[in-house]
Amino acid sequence: MKINKINFEGKFAKLPGADYAVGIIAKMNNYEFKIVKFKGDFIWHSHEDTDETFIVLDGTLIMNFRDRTVEINKSEMIVIPKGVEHKPSSVNGYKVLLIEPEDTPNTGNVKSDVTIKKIGWV
Amino acid sequence: MKINKINFEGKFAKLPGADYAVGIIAKMNNYEFKIVKFKGDFIWHSHEDTDETFIVLDGTLIMNFRDRTVEINKSEMIVIPKGVEHKPSSVNGYKVLLIEPEDTPNTGNVKSDVTIKKIGWV
Repeated sequence: MKINKINFEGKFAKLPGADYAVGIIAKMNNYEFKIVKFKGDFIWHSHEDTDETFIVLDGTLIMNFRDRTVEINKSEMIVIPKGVEHKPSSVNGYKVLLIEPEDTPNTGNVKSDVTIKKIGWV
Repeated sequence: MKINKINFEGKFAKLPGADYAVGIIAKMNNYEFKIVKFKGDFIWHSHEDTDETFIVLDGTLIMNFRDRTVEINKSEMIVIPKGVEHKPSSVNGYKVLLIEPEDTPNTGNVKSDVTIKKIGWV
């Protein structure tokens, strides 16, 4: 069996040059590791069935909750508990490693223009 | 509900000053995020029931497999498939974020001097 290491920057280089791009880079049991680059305001949503983990690899992620805002920088992480509404934002852009069960929809319980039907591997 | 971000360096500062130390820093569903610092040669072991993810935050992790060796540096990760024997090593020390189901034993199927009965939170 061939077991490869994964280099984050090498994977980010394969994402398209848009303000929002996502790609799966690894799987652990039934969980997926996705790289995400994002700039702007995402939409309010929640995931009813699962927690979701954001590890910031570069830049600053502003995580908005209904009652407050948390600023997450490089070398920091946050776990969003299931059912909790959140809205990621970034002024200058961030790069994140996202960890959640496979087939977790990117906009959770909401259908929107930014909903991705099927996230691909990079 | 209070949802806090987690700063890796702040958590590492709370680990004891030994060549090997582990602490739980977060939970996502039934998975745990653990910080690990390690220097030396660990033992050969495998986890029969689960994959296991190592994200290198600092230093170099030499992951030995029975048929080859993979060097994993900062900003790189590797997923060890369940059942695969591995032995982490490091000459100068590494800091790793380890992700696996709760209560996964640190030495897998092997009992040894380095087996930790119950890993605590930091």
